[in-house]
Amino acid sequence: MTTPPPARPLSATERTRHRRLREQGRADRAALDSILAAGFVCHLGVTVDGTVMVVPTVYGADGGTLYFHGSVASRSLVAAPGATVCVTVTHVDGLVLARSVFEHGVNYRSAMIYGVPRPVTDDEEKLAGLRCLTEQSAPGQWDYARRPSRKELAATALLALSLVESSVKVRTGPPDDGDSPDAELGLWAGVLPLNASWGALRSAPDLDPAIAPPPHLVQRAGTAAQA
Amino acid sequence: MTTPPPARPLSATERTRHRRLREQGRADRAALDSILAAGFVCHLGVTVDGTVMVVPTVYGADGGTLYFHGSVASRSLVAAPGATVCVTVTHVDGLVLARSVFEHGVNYRSAMIYGVPRPVTDDEEKLAGLRCLTEQSAPGQWDYARRPSRKELAATALLALSLVESSVKVRTGPPDDGDSPDAELGLWAGVLPLNASWGALRSAPDLDPAIAPPPHLVQRAGTAAQA
Repeated sequence: MTTPPPARPLSATERTRHRRLREQGRADRAALDSILAAGFVCHLGVTVDGTVMVVPTVYGADGGTLYFHGSVASRSLVAAPGATVCVTVTHVDGLVLARSVFEHGVNYRSAMIYGVPRPVTDDEEKLAGLRCLTEQSAPGQWDYARRPSRKELAATALLALSLVESSVKVRTGPPDDGDSPDAELGLWAGVLPLNASWGALRSAPDLDPAIAPPPHLVQRAGTAAQA
Repeated sequence: MTTPPPARPLSATERTRHRRLREQGRADRAALDSILAAGFVCHLGVTVDGTVMVVPTVYGADGGTLYFHGSVASRSLVAAPGATVCVTVTHVDGLVLARSVFEHGVNYRSAMIYGVPRPVTDDEEKLAGLRCLTEQSAPGQWDYARRPSRKELAATALLALSLVESSVKVRTGPPDDGDSPDAELGLWAGVLPLNASWGALRSAPDLDPAIAPPPHLVQRAGTAAQA
């Protein structure tokens, strides 16, 4: 059995240090990477004129950087350049059904990233970032679909966020009130898992019926998924 | 065929008026209710010391009110009582795979609610709010599991948020680049749906094997789901 390399610790700043549910904190870079790799939609929090705004948007994670479209948040990011944002990625894995309502909960994996997004202006990095964004949700599409033209590239606002200031929270397993007096109530307790999967491909109605979907999409239908 | 009642319009304030993707805005209360009813996890955005924080948490929606636990955001809500928050609920329905990368997108339904959360202090409303929260994710559990004791109720911080200032965005259907020159590229285009469903119940390892799960949970396994 090989020994895994030591986990790179996540930075623990005032913001990312867990003040609650400390036992669910995992200062573990591998856990962050795994949560980010599993999904493609994040919730981006920005402050505009002192009011918070939470916007769902697609992302791409590449090593130490998270990329997202500037357009989704242009209003806020134009209004407040240099402001710190919070990006949260959450996967819900199931319901934790305890004997008591008070102990009910959710199994989940969640990552929070704080930082000041950097606008990507260099064409080469922009293309690499867009590739990352595209491949995150639909691996194989960057090489299959038509890539951005010079004009489209200019019209695309891309932002890069460092993963340095991140925190991860995970809750797994059964309810833990089996040791409490509630265990004597004779009630069922356990987990109801929530699963996601890719469905069957639906061709666009205006598609030439002679055009078959590419293998990288065909192979994906029916497999496990996570937004 | 019966005529549906006129949709109650959502309030359009400076914050909820759509500045982008206006065609995706649906000033329609029924759409909001339907999006909230479909899920049970929201992303709560709060500002602490000028920095935004986005926290996933469970919610319950009851008529004109959204309930969520105060504990998940206690740090921020204690730090900034009376501050406006943004709650976002998002359901991802599939990938929109166009002929060009530029036209790729996501089919989704999303609701954003702005407001100042009100701490629920009245025991009767707190019980009703907790019932709403519990039934949102696990219908039937409020009547099945042990309800909160007086002590547990006192230890639970519950917040209520009015749904008055809300906005909804929805994207459905195939990619729309079939009219563009890209249609001549001979590339496949369409949608890859993302589906979620409840899995098979997993009993807690410490459960007395003689205790069977209740019908409301048994019937749910294998049915469509959404976090």
